[in-house]
Amino acid sequence: MNLGRLSRILKSMEEKAMPQMIISDPVTIFYLTGKLIHPGERLLALYLNVNGNHKLMINELFPQEKDLGVELAWYNDSQDGVEILSQFVESDKPIGIDKKWPAKFLIRLQELGGGSKFLNGSLIVDYIRMIKDEKEQELMRESSKLNDSIMGKVIPWAGKGLTEKDLAQKVRDFYKEEGVVGGNTAIAAYAKGAADPHHAANDSKGKRGDCVILDFGGYKGNYASDMTRTVFIGEVSDRAREIYNIVWEANRRGIAAAKPGNRMCDVDLACRSYIEEKGFGKYFTHRTGHSIGLEGHEYGDVSSVNEDIIKAGQCFSVEPGIYIPEEGIGVRIEDIVLTTEDGCEVLNHYTKDLIVVPEE
Amino acid sequence: MNLGRLSRILKSMEEKAMPQMIISDPVTIFYLTGKLIHPGERLLALYLNVNGNHKLMINELFPQEKDLGVELAWYNDSQDGVEILSQFVESDKPIGIDKKWPAKFLIRLQELGGGSKFLNGSLIVDYIRMIKDEKEQELMRESSKLNDSIMGKVIPWAGKGLTEKDLAQKVRDFYKEEGVVGGNTAIAAYAKGAADPHHAANDSKGKRGDCVILDFGGYKGNYASDMTRTVFIGEVSDRAREIYNIVWEANRRGIAAAKPGNRMCDVDLACRSYIEEKGFGKYFTHRTGHSIGLEGHEYGDVSSVNEDIIKAGQCFSVEPGIYIPEEGIGVRIEDIVLTTEDGCEVLNHYTKDLIVVPEE
Repeated sequence: MNLGRLSRILKSMEEKAMPQMIISDPVTIFYLTGKLIHPGERLLALYLNVNGNHKLMINELFPQEKDLGVELAWYNDSQDGVEILSQFVESDKPIGIDKKWPAKFLIRLQELGGGSKFLNGSLIVDYIRMIKDEKEQELMRESSKLNDSIMGKVIPWAGKGLTEKDLAQKVRDFYKEEGVVGGNTAIAAYAKGAADPHHAANDSKGKRGDCVILDFGGYKGNYASDMTRTVFIGEVSDRAREIYNIVWEANRRGIAAAKPGNRMCDVDLACRSYIEEKGFGKYFTHRTGHSIGLEGHEYGDVSSVNEDIIKAGQCFSVEPGIYIPEEGIGVRIEDIVLTTEDGCEVLNHYTKDLIVVPEE
Repeated sequence: MNLGRLSRILKSMEEKAMPQMIISDPVTIFYLTGKLIHPGERLLALYLNVNGNHKLMINELFPQEKDLGVELAWYNDSQDGVEILSQFVESDKPIGIDKKWPAKFLIRLQELGGGSKFLNGSLIVDYIRMIKDEKEQELMRESSKLNDSIMGKVIPWAGKGLTEKDLAQKVRDFYKEEGVVGGNTAIAAYAKGAADPHHAANDSKGKRGDCVILDFGGYKGNYASDMTRTVFIGEVSDRAREIYNIVWEANRRGIAAAKPGNRMCDVDLACRSYIEEKGFGKYFTHRTGHSIGLEGHEYGDVSSVNEDIIKAGQCFSVEPGIYIPEEGIGVRIEDIVLTTEDGCEVLNHYTKDLIVVPEE
């Protein structure tokens, strides 16, 4: 197990009077053990106890060659895994439960009397995972660097008359060329589609003057990237340019506000208040961003209601946008930032200068 | 709501002394309401009460135009959806909980005192969904018919020297041509790969004499298909032909045993005992099949430990196999059956005659 990460979790458990916890999220188990195990519907549970009696409950179908630094407790399909797990649990003490643990396991543990009180334990893990350590920071840099390079490959295709679906497929193809998982949620949207932030790619094609929103991310070294650029086909109207520049300035202001001591909602406000000031407030219809790390979306939104104080080592997106359905204009500009001691490092380096791609 | 399905569930709830239940599985909610809603991490819960006070708790982000035949209870992201849900729950009565409901919701409901006892309610639903009604039977037929036709398109490609990955991609491409979701778990495996039932497609290519396992399914009209054929490239050895014929006869015997009154384990035994008798018992390393319907894998295995009595209207796979890693031979033949009053209808009609595809 990664002892630094483990000790931070155990310390927080002590502080929160949660002497034991069950972690079932494969990504958090990877975070601690370095091994990603996808158990499907089968029980996989990392039991942590502040007394040091940790166990990883795992099905015999997933043999482990490497020492994961935690004692493995095996069960097979003919056994009741939760019953075996319950033998480790201190029944007279509260227990934290992974927020995603399926009810069939939790109800069984409760039937077996495993724990005096059942608490949602995930916030502890979420807040620890939120602060990236040095190794993670390096992986986040590399992941965003790859995404920058894929953005560079995708943009020229925006003017080639592809349908939105085919343009999104291009993104996935470029990821595949890199040999990494990515682009699964690739957004490629022209004009009217771009003007709807919940738009799903369809068979419409871009035409001269259209804005094109390109929003995608992938995983490199298990760490996620996510970025958005908006480009224009052939030409750009004065109106669209004005909107582009407002979004760009909002993105800049959000980045400037992304620093320790500020709250997450201050980043949102920095973007939102500028867009409102320019008269487009009602067209910025979503939160400003989300945390990111081992997952594309992690706990901790950049939104008006998140008053958590920013600390160094956080990664989140700053992605203001303006969407005007009646004009068929949508612009979003998104970067991932990594907060430092006194500000933040922007992990995306692809230019934000307004790009007009040649119409082909 | 589909009143026939609903009344069967309510009747079973009465019988099991479970006066209220929370269903969160989007597929079961579709089964009852005809509407498939994927809420992501947000709360979606169909609350059923034998007194008729049913509610569908749904986030305002998912507006519904059609009447779903159940009263909708709305919440938004700034509200505690479970708290609103808890107001409908009869706190002095037991409540069934969907087996997949995330712990964060269940723990919150328990904190709010919603229910005198928390039970796994999913078995009730699983057993109702297991028996397909007439409309479902027709959809299952159509789905398997489509799969037959795709098998016919894929088989000629087995001899064209594609890698396993590219052959699996062919399957997905053919589904895409049909405009339906499918082939996501397509298995295409040559020789050594075929001899390992847990093999993942790689870059190896088929060569003369290789067996080729083709195992895939998709969704048509929301109902799943799943089938396997094993073919040979260029020629087939006497040994491989012998094994093929044993698996085929096992498949026939399993199908013959698939009838009301028999137990699910009898179908497994019919296949397994024949393969054992022929001396290949240790090479048949998995259960004989699984139930299928709105999901590719549903509750109710065809395995040695499932003693449930078969009823008319069930759909499951009969898929015996023999896998001999040291010889690089693997054969599996899989059909979906639909049980009738006195036997079963085989939903797959693609030939099981041994096929040798020309090597190209």
